[in-house]
Order: sequence, then C-alpha cells, then structure tokens
Amino acid sequence: MDIKSIQKELKTAKLTGEIFTLGNLFIGEDILPDENIILSLTGFSGSYAILFVTPSKSFLFVDGRYELQAKKEINTRQTEIVKLSEISFLNWLKKNYTATNTKIRYNPWVISLQDLKRYERALPKAEFIPISAPNFLLSKKKAKVFPHQKKFTGQTAKDKINGLARHIKQLGLDAFLVTSAANTSWLLNLRSNALPYSPIFRAYVLVEKNGNYKIFAENTDQTPSLPFKDLAKILPQYKNIGADFDTTPAIIENYAPTLKHTPDNTTLAKAIKNTTELKGMRNAHLRDGVALSKFIYWLSKNYKDKTETEVAEKLLSFRKKEPDFFSESFATIAGFGKNAAIVHYHAPEKKSAVLKKNSVLLLDSGGQYFDGTTDVTRTIALGTPSSDMIEKNTLVLKAHIALASAVFHQATSGNELDLIARQPLLKQGLDYEHGTGHGVGFFSDVHEGPARISIHAKHSAPLEKGMVTSIEPGYYKENAFGIRIENLYYVKPAKNPKFLTFEVLTLVPIDKKLINKYLLTPDEITWLNRYHRQVFLSLKKYLTKQELSWLKDACAPL
Amino acid sequence: MDIKSIQKELKTAKLTGEIFTLGNLFIGEDILPDENIILSLTGFSGSYAILFVTPSKSFLFVDGRYELQAKKEINTRQTEIVKLSEISFLNWLKKNYTATNTKIRYNPWVISLQDLKRYERALPKAEFIPISAPNFLLSKKKAKVFPHQKKFTGQTAKDKINGLARHIKQLGLDAFLVTSAANTSWLLNLRSNALPYSPIFRAYVLVEKNGNYKIFAENTDQTPSLPFKDLAKILPQYKNIGADFDTTPAIIENYAPTLKHTPDNTTLAKAIKNTTELKGMRNAHLRDGVALSKFIYWLSKNYKDKTETEVAEKLLSFRKKEPDFFSESFATIAGFGKNAAIVHYHAPEKKSAVLKKNSVLLLDSGGQYFDGTTDVTRTIALGTPSSDMIEKNTLVLKAHIALASAVFHQATSGNELDLIARQPLLKQGLDYEHGTGHGVGFFSDVHEGPARISIHAKHSAPLEKGMVTSIEPGYYKENAFGIRIENLYYVKPAKNPKFLTFEVLTLVPIDKKLINKYLLTPDEITWLNRYHRQVFLSLKKYLTKQELSWLKDACAPL
Repeated sequence: MDIKSIQKELKTAKLTGEIFTLGNLFIGEDILPDENIILSLTGFSGSYAILFVTPSKSFLFVDGRYELQAKKEINTRQTEIVKLSEISFLNWLKKNYTATNTKIRYNPWVISLQDLKRYERALPKAEFIPISAPNFLLSKKKAKVFPHQKKFTGQTAKDKINGLARHIKQLGLDAFLVTSAANTSWLLNLRSNALPYSPIFRAYVLVEKNGNYKIFAENTDQTPSLPFKDLAKILPQYKNIGADFDTTPAIIENYAPTLKHTPDNTTLAKAIKNTTELKGMRNAHLRDGVALSKFIYWLSKNYKDKTETEVAEKLLSFRKKEPDFFSESFATIAGFGKNAAIVHYHAPEKKSAVLKKNSVLLLDSGGQYFDGTTDVTRTIALGTPSSDMIEKNTLVLKAHIALASAVFHQATSGNELDLIARQPLLKQGLDYEHGTGHGVGFFSDVHEGPARISIHAKHSAPLEKGMVTSIEPGYYKENAFGIRIENLYYVKPAKNPKFLTFEVLTLVPIDKKLINKYLLTPDEITWLNRYHRQVFLSLKKYLTKQELSWLKDACAPL
Repeated sequence: MDIKSIQKELKTAKLTGEIFTLGNLFIGEDILPDENIILSLTGFSGSYAILFVTPSKSFLFVDGRYELQAKKEINTRQTEIVKLSEISFLNWLKKNYTATNTKIRYNPWVISLQDLKRYERALPKAEFIPISAPNFLLSKKKAKVFPHQKKFTGQTAKDKINGLARHIKQLGLDAFLVTSAANTSWLLNLRSNALPYSPIFRAYVLVEKNGNYKIFAENTDQTPSLPFKDLAKILPQYKNIGADFDTTPAIIENYAPTLKHTPDNTTLAKAIKNTTELKGMRNAHLRDGVALSKFIYWLSKNYKDKTETEVAEKLLSFRKKEPDFFSESFATIAGFGKNAAIVHYHAPEKKSAVLKKNSVLLLDSGGQYFDGTTDVTRTIALGTPSSDMIEKNTLVLKAHIALASAVFHQATSGNELDLIARQPLLKQGLDYEHGTGHGVGFFSDVHEGPARISIHAKHSAPLEKGMVTSIEPGYYKENAFGIRIENLYYVKPAKNPKFLTFEVLTLVPIDKKLINKYLLTPDEITWLNRYHRQVFLSLKKYLTKQELSWLKDACAPL
C-alpha cells in the first residue's frame, strides 16, 4: 500500500480523506516496525504522528520532538508536515472540514472510541466511515508467553481477577473488556517476548462478574486464547458490558452497541505496587545500581575513542550479568556533548559520536528484571567539564533534590508538584521542555499511568502511596551539552503520616565533578551526602577492589 | 416568617422541603444583616450556610469554620446541624430524596441557575418548584452611588462597555446580562456605600452588542436605573442573550428562555489591573503601610491592658488619617494569644481579650482606598515570645518567601503554586487549613476571582500578568497561638520575560523578634533584608522622629 493508491481509492469513493494513526489494536502501547503503517507509507520513524491523506494531498502531524526528523525522513513534495505545536489535529480538522459533505475514512481497529467521539464532536456535520476491511495491524511474528511468578507479583492472577469481578458487579455490569495490554498482563500475571523493551503480553481479556474470563490474543503460544474476530460473536452475549474507551478500538462498539465507557480500574490497581513488588523493585534497583556503577567505573578508564553505541552496548553487557535480567526497558540514550542536548537522542548506529575528554555523556537507560523495572539517567563528566556545565548540573541537582525531598498532601496530582522541581532553574531564567516525572511499571511498561509529574498534565491522577515515579529534571543547551539527573522513587507516608513523600529506589552515584558545592544549601548537601552514603553501603559488597575504591571516592561526602 | 410557619405551608402544599441560601439576588457577594434569611430564621450569623426545611424537620449545613458557632447560635432542638466536612449538600439531597414524588421549593431570585441545574442533575426524579412570590431579598436601606474617577480607573466606562460589546458580537449574541455586582461596578466605574467593607454598586447591567446598556438597581440614588421587575419585559426583546449562570438567579431563565450560559469575561478583564490601577495600588499600599507601621509603633508602646477591639479601633483611626481612605476592606481580625489560633476570629465586642506581654497579636486588616484595596496580616510579638512561637513564625516566613520569590510559566494556576509555599511547613509535619492566596479587587471586593492559590481550587483560573493576589501562609496551634504573614503581590514578567513572578505591594515590617535567623537560608535572609530596605526607604519620609527610629530598627538587616 502506498499513498498514491490510497488517494486513488479515496477519489473513486468520493471521500474527503483518511486518518492513519501510529498504532495497532493495542492503542497507546508500543508497536513493532512491521505494525507501523505511517512508517510504511511515509518513511517517518518517530514514535508519534498522525497522517491524514486526501485525494490530492497528504499531511503528517508531528510534535516538536520530530519536526526536524520528519523533514529528513519523508518526501515533503508528497506529504506536508503540520506542526502540532502550532495546531492540534482536531482544530486542524475543524478549520478545514466544516462542510456537510465531509466523509472521512478510518480503521476502526486502531482508532479508540474516545478519539472517534472527539472527531465526531469536532466535526458534527461530517460522516466518519470505517474502512471496508478493518485490520488490527498486528505483527505476524509469533510471541512466547510466560507466567510472571507469584514470588515476584505477590498476588495470584485469580485474586486480581476476583478483585476486578467484584468491581464489575458493583458497577452493575455483566462483564468488562480489558483492552490495555499492560493491564491484561498485570491481571493475568502473564508476560511475553513480543516487544523489545516491554515484556507485556499483548492480549485482551474479557472478565465476567462471576470471575470467569476469556483471553483474546493472536500470534502467541498462549492457550487457551481466542482470535480477536471472536469478539464479534462473544460480546453480543452480554447485556451490560464496560470497556475503557481510551484504549478500546472503535470497532468494539459495533459488537457491543450498549458498551459503557468505564475507566479501567486495573490501571490504578497496577500502579499501586504491593509490598512484594516494592521489595522486588528495591532488589532490582540494587542489581541495576551494581551494573551501572561497574559500567561508570569502566567508562572512567576506557571512554576515550569509544562511540556512543559502543558504550551503550557495554552497559548492556553489565546489566546482562545481573540475575533475573530480561531486557533493556527502553533504547539507551547515550548522548555525548552536543548530542546530550537532544532530549530524545538515539545514536545513529553507523555515525555514532566518539567520546572525548572535557565534555559530558548523558546516559539514560534502564532494565527489565523479573522483580522490577528500572530507569535512570546520569550525566557523567569526561575529563574536565566547563564551569557552565558544572553550574547547570548543580541547578538540575537542586531541582532534583527539591522534588525528591518534597512533602505533599493525599490527592496531590503531578502538575501540582512539577513547579517545585523547576524553581531553581526558573529563578535563573532556565527551563526544560519535558515532564518532570512519569509512572513506572513493574516488569512492564517503563512509562505507566495514571499519574505523571508534568505542568501539561493538568488533570492527571493523584500520586498515591505505593506508586513508583521518576524524577528527572534537566537542562539542554543546544549544540553544546545536556544535563539530566533521573532517579526512581516510590510514594510513601511522610514522617507525619497524614502526608506523603518519596523514597528513593535508584542506587547510582551522582557525578560530583559536575557539582559546585557553593551553590548548594546545607540541606541540599545533607541530602546528597546521605544519598551517596546509602548508595555506597548498598553497593559495596558487590564490587571488585578497584571498583570499590572508585565508589568510595564517588560517594565521599561533599 | 419563622421555621414553623414555613413547615405549615410545606405540609399544606404537600412539598418535601424548601432550600434557603445565605444571599440575595447578587449571588456570591456580601450581604447586609437584614438580607440574611438564614440569620432571621435560625439565628446563625456565619458567612456561609444552607438551610433545608421539611414539614417536620430542618437542617443547617455548615462548614468546619462554623460547626461550633452554629451549635451556640441556633436552637438545635428545632434545627439539626449537618457538617459539610462530612457530606456535601448535594450528596445529602441525593442520599435522602431519591423518590419520584419529591417536590422541593426554592426562591428563584437567590439560587443561581448553575446551582439549580446541579440540584436537578443530583435528583433527576424530583420536581423543583419556585416559591409563589419570588423575592430578591434586597435591603431597603438606600445606598449612595458615586463615580470611580478615571484618574483612578485608567479607563472610561465607555471603553470598558465597548470592549464587552465587541466580545458580545464575537460570541454571536445580541446582549449580555452582567449579574455580578463587582463586575457591574468595574464596567460602569460606579461604586456605592451599600456594604460596610466593599464599595461595590449593587446592580445588574444589560449590555447590547452595539454598546447601549441599561442599569437595573433598587434602593439606590442611581439615575437612570430600572427596577429588577422590568427584566421580565425587557429580556424577551432579545433573541440571543447570554449571562454567567454562576451568578445569575434561576428566575432570569423564565424571562429569557433561550438564555445561554456565557462565562462573564468582565471577571478576567477586571482581575487584570491596568498600569493606572497598579500605580494606584502601589500608592494605596504606601499610605496603608504608613498607617499600619505607625500603628505597630504605637502598639509597641501601648499594648498593655488594651483589648483586641480597642487596638482594631486604633488601627482604623490611623488608616482614616490617610488620603483617599474610604473604609476598611473587611472586619479586622485582631487575635491575641490563643485567639490568634482561630483562623476567622472576630473579637466579641464585649468580651474582647486583653493584650498582655510574652505572646503574639495576629492582625489581619485592610483598607479600601479610591486608588486601591489592601489586605495585610502581621503577627506581632508582645514582650518576649516563646521559642516555639519564633520557630513556627520562621517556618511561616520561609513559606511566604518560597512563594513570593517563585518563578512560573504562563498559564500556571494557583493549585500548581500552593505546595511551593507549604514545603517548609509540610517538611516539619505541619500545615495550615486555609488557602495560600486570593485575588484582590481594585477599590472593590477584597476577595476577587477568577484566580486563587489553593490546593482545593483544582480548576482555578491561571495567574496572569497584572493580577493582584495575596500570599498568606500560616500556622495555628490550638489554645496556644497563631501565626500568619500576608502581603499582596502583583504578577509581572520575570527577568526572563517568558516566565512570570510576583512583585510586592505591601510595605509593612515583618516582626524580627519572631525570626530565628539560623533557620533561614542565605537566599531567604537576602529576601527579607531587601524587603525591609524597600519598606524603610518607602515609608521613612512619612513618619515622626520616634516612629522613624523604631522603623530603622524594625527594618535593619538580619
């Protein structure tokens, strides 16, 4: 399929245009390259875009991260780039298609019910027409499915499903269709090797109010499981059925016309880690800290003339030595010097930069372990960093400490915490153009809802006891260098248990060569010294003599 | 009218109950005692309550501030107190009145359209019946109306009205009915002496898209003006008419059945002060600072054996000497010792406490000047304060400085700033049970929307350049003492003009006898010293020799 043949079809059928999104039937979750219809149609390889094709034109909607990349990757004579920073896709539709004869085609397996309803509200006079052969765009690659053992999860699938069943009953429903693969994975204690960085089992599960359930999955070795087309005959058997419209394909409403939008409360249950999961997270972070610290020591001796890609591979080799390691939790970002200023930098495999002295390496990486998921960023001085680098890294450290040591009320949402982190930077007229933190899954997606710490998430879910979040302020000086300091934390009661605070999980030294002590307050110095003492005491017994001697220095009080 | 006769009526008419709110046709604004139907029915004198009368019972809904007071003031054998901290009025209605034969009476002049619709949604099977002779509960006391001169307002009424007319046209409306008296006052540059603390002119104004307008007011000397009953024949003359349902009585929908809910954009225009208004605010705060500083000096010499009421009167006498003073902006809170721990304390006129040494006086007061409105709280040590008082006051000062020196993005709302102020207290396990700041009017209501700084205002309007807000963290130790430090600030661009920050208006020394310097960071000490230098330089030429010598000490660097 190419854009021209689509345009021919649209012309013949007298249609206004067709919407293509970047995803398969697991809406909002990671996809494989052969599931990426926007990649195959345009060559655009970024992680977010919308493509709108009309009989004579086509438009690729991308956000600020991808404006430059899109320009390089696509044929701009064929497809026009529209900047989402200037207009939302919805407003663009509203602006251009107010006429009554507007007819827009879409694939109802990959557009969520929520989005379809948004389109319909935005263009009340338009007709939205599903494509004639809806396709869920799932890779043919067969995935292996395996249980996530109770010693890791702390709760059996049966208990989790019974909990959901009780909730279904309370809501007066007969059944609930879980369409988020991460939620299905958590609920069934199942995982798979389908994706490179997230071990989720890509499946739907239909749970009845009595606790019975049916799994829908394809191209996996899971038995029993039903093909997705069976939803068409099974869903009509229930009178009152709920699904979360944010993750449910529009086609499902055809199978269950009385389908009720019901926020999936598995999302919250999964986000609140139980004591077994938190213990696992601490253990996984200890091993991850050992691997990353060994790597940083190795780097200090060996960085010269290594490429960004080579050091990322070396880091992976350290992680692989740790027990219960499964995969990386995302593609490592190893950005040297000016590349560190690109927030979502991925070193090109062939032209990856060579590390040299007197600059910084920004290293954002993480691991999937059976007992937890990690995500950590350290900015490491190579040789002698500039005073500007030291000053900015110190401000970012102040930002990190400000939020890491914050105390807050129950029901506080992330947008109400974000500015605490940004104060040290904003007071100097500086800022970073990304969120301050995201929820993290348990041997699952490294980005997990419902909470996040961002000024843009005005209606995000509150942070609750047991949730895991990153804190990752940064500073980026274009064409010069970039700084980010990221730890994971879990939310716990504060000393006054009416309030909440953060407890650190990540155990990796923060580079003191990039800190100007005289810019820190006594409280900030105490925080850093305590953190380093904790890192040292936790890691010391897992290191060689040389590594230990390095760690002792790295963790010595300021 | 009394509760018994209402109950008799309800029984005869076979009604479920009747709702009484605390207000007149100017919904949400201050009222006079003879407009207070809840006071006349129950004896309750607090500033917020809902009364629900059924044929056999009656219920008074009050919030945490008034639970004790209600118990003292009302006949609890006749009327049951329901705590709003435990159940909202809406949820209480839902819980008790689900039957189809529910019939609830209300006065459509004093219930807003928004609230009526909320009741209707909460009880979809119930019938809401307006009382047979709707009454707007306006005092018969005749108010004097006077112009607010352009030298103060910086903009003519004509310009303001034309601005609104343009907006009306843009919205495709024929006319807009302004029902907020504060908005009417701003729009018409008119004020009155109707209320003791707010100089607003209590009127509606109907503005047409061509800029013509009609004023509706009663019991004032304003000419021309129409009686409110004329709305019944005038509103039907317009096809498309808008009003803000939050402040518009339910009865208005009878007169204009096609009435559209249109947020009153005068609210925002009024909140963003122009340069003349900001200059006035600075001048008014200078004079208010002179009056309050003279008072504090007087107090330091004369507090012994004075009552709370006497010192509040003395303070008023200092304010009265300042040019362009009109009235207090609210009833002064002068709380000594343990009375300072009562957030909304008002000294009882007869049994007002006597000031003694070795405690604190919390003084929250303000003035209405033709060129601005002030609101300031100082906590003043009398004799030698305890180390606990000093420690807690220093924490409150840290909280005040944290927010006063914050830098934030455009479109930041108050709930996203609140926790910055609370950090120094929350980190010690302490908190205060009130908001951190409120908008302030310009020779108008001392509490003015749409922005406020509160963790409870999850959907409050963003702070914008030119808005004036209080910052007023506190700490209250029951039966011991209370602390609050309140200044007013206006929002202005930060050094990096992409961001916003606060500029102080209030010019009154902060009592150093209550500060432990060793709990402050160098940045906090710098903030306080700079503030005191600004206070000293601003006030010095308006003081007597003795006052000046005291001010020099009071403002000397820490």
